[in-house]
Amino acid sequence: MARLLRVAAAQMGPTQRAEPRPVTLARLVALLERAAQQGAQLVVFPELAFTTFFPRWLLEGAELEGYYERAMPNPAVQALFDRARELGIGFYVGYAELTPDGQHFNSAITVGPDGAILGKYRKVHLPGSVEPRDGARFQQLEKRYFEYGDLGFPAFRGAEAWHRPVMGMLVCNDRRWPEAWRVYGLQDVELMVMGYNSAAYDPNGGTSENEEIRTFHSNIAVQANAYMNATWAVSVAKAGNEDGSGLIGSSIIVDPNGVIVAQAQSLGDEVLVAEIDLDAVRQGKDKMFHFASHRRPDHYRRIVDQVGAEAPR
Amino acid sequence: MARLLRVAAAQMGPTQRAEPRPVTLARLVALLERAAQQGAQLVVFPELAFTTFFPRWLLEGAELEGYYERAMPNPAVQALFDRARELGIGFYVGYAELTPDGQHFNSAITVGPDGAILGKYRKVHLPGSVEPRDGARFQQLEKRYFEYGDLGFPAFRGAEAWHRPVMGMLVCNDRRWPEAWRVYGLQDVELMVMGYNSAAYDPNGGTSENEEIRTFHSNIAVQANAYMNATWAVSVAKAGNEDGSGLIGSSIIVDPNGVIVAQAQSLGDEVLVAEIDLDAVRQGKDKMFHFASHRRPDHYRRIVDQVGAEAPR
Repeated sequence: MARLLRVAAAQMGPTQRAEPRPVTLARLVALLERAAQQGAQLVVFPELAFTTFFPRWLLEGAELEGYYERAMPNPAVQALFDRARELGIGFYVGYAELTPDGQHFNSAITVGPDGAILGKYRKVHLPGSVEPRDGARFQQLEKRYFEYGDLGFPAFRGAEAWHRPVMGMLVCNDRRWPEAWRVYGLQDVELMVMGYNSAAYDPNGGTSENEEIRTFHSNIAVQANAYMNATWAVSVAKAGNEDGSGLIGSSIIVDPNGVIVAQAQSLGDEVLVAEIDLDAVRQGKDKMFHFASHRRPDHYRRIVDQVGAEAPR
Repeated sequence: MARLLRVAAAQMGPTQRAEPRPVTLARLVALLERAAQQGAQLVVFPELAFTTFFPRWLLEGAELEGYYERAMPNPAVQALFDRARELGIGFYVGYAELTPDGQHFNSAITVGPDGAILGKYRKVHLPGSVEPRDGARFQQLEKRYFEYGDLGFPAFRGAEAWHRPVMGMLVCNDRRWPEAWRVYGLQDVELMVMGYNSAAYDPNGGTSENEEIRTFHSNIAVQANAYMNATWAVSVAKAGNEDGSGLIGSSIIVDPNGVIVAQAQSLGDEVLVAEIDLDAVRQGKDKMFHFASHRRPDHYRRIVDQVGAEAPR
């Protein structure tokens, strides 16, 4: 018997720095409602979905503090949680987390159709730098504004109404790291969900990678890792031009063969819905990627014994 | 200054079980000469290039023994080594290895332009089974005919004339395993070479995966792993119909962005040549995939601590 689930990718267009937070939240609620109209049971929003991608600026004081959530939910986002529960829909959403003891993380949660938080994740693979680059118009300061995620890659069970899929979360740059996918694969993951804000070009004028190749990178990383771990994946962009800095789109829903079954066509607010059969993961998990039969961890030691690359002489 | 190298993928069409070994060897020499005419300095041949893909049959005695090489080179393959040295070309070739103490491996070597063996690899990820499947027309008995590779994933330096690239070898199914690529990535690999014999469809009549999807799998695994490890890759098929069992083609040369720069168009003997700039790996290795800056091995422990998948409750 097929285990069917209707999932949605709720891509967001740009969120300008000056956009009031209630306006942004209303966009999330509108996307949720559009997904509900198409029967979606689980909606995936982007990384840092409640605000602009603020690590592109060197900030301090009240503006910087205003980007973090001190609890989840909280009054500024409660309307999204309330509407989702009314509609009986769950969601993944990325946000900047400030803990009671003062730690900062680039986090994501998955909320069930009853409003309960089913899983939480803190981004492990932070790109960028701690110190700003002199003279650059745009920064990438994730290593300054966030600590490295301290929860590992914790798989969890989705809701009963979703057929309790084994789920895993990533945030943005994590999707390019096969280690992250494999740790979830080793927990038998059936559905990976992730949001991202990925530069469409060098915002400071470099020309080494254009929008086309960056979109291609985003797609093949998700496609191949979904295939190699025999899992469904929903990967969702915040897209378009945020205050002069471009972000790629190409939100996708990918099957366990690595095939794209739905793909965003715009750089704006856009909803993709697909009905997925969770049991489609079995072909890969039981045969080509039956890990217990084929993996040889004795030969993988460098993956944990070494951080950087070391070339032979 | 660019570090340029002309590489060739020497795809082979099918080798029937009845084809005399000297005929097969003459095909390899002809492919080598075609590559030389196009200026190639390094030619990549398939897995088990000297024979048919014999693990598809349950065999014993003299026929089985005849498929293994007891030394490399040996009189049956010497003509290839001699011609390559005359032409000043190096090559990767896959073969069935029988060691003096009676061990069997699915191996590959890379030979330099002077005929010296620069590197050796024994396939780690053996697919198939030890025991034959009752009633099946075709078997996949690699786990019966070979022991698991015992050399790990040893990167090595290519020849001076090739600008001493850091090289890594895989064999067939290994290319679908991100752990294998990452262990080479952690040795700063610049050029991955591999050969394969991959079924185009279920030779026993199953319909779950057709030739198109199997070819797609082969391509995206190589493309994404090349991208995620910022390396060039040359992946070469034995293709076509071997005694009623179909093999995919799609030999490819892939750049460090994961983009295919050359791709076979046939299922027969075919040579692809590309001039590659080894320094093109720097963009990825110095930035997005600068491992020392971004990897978090503490969170990767499951990759070595666990063989099979373990689902959360």
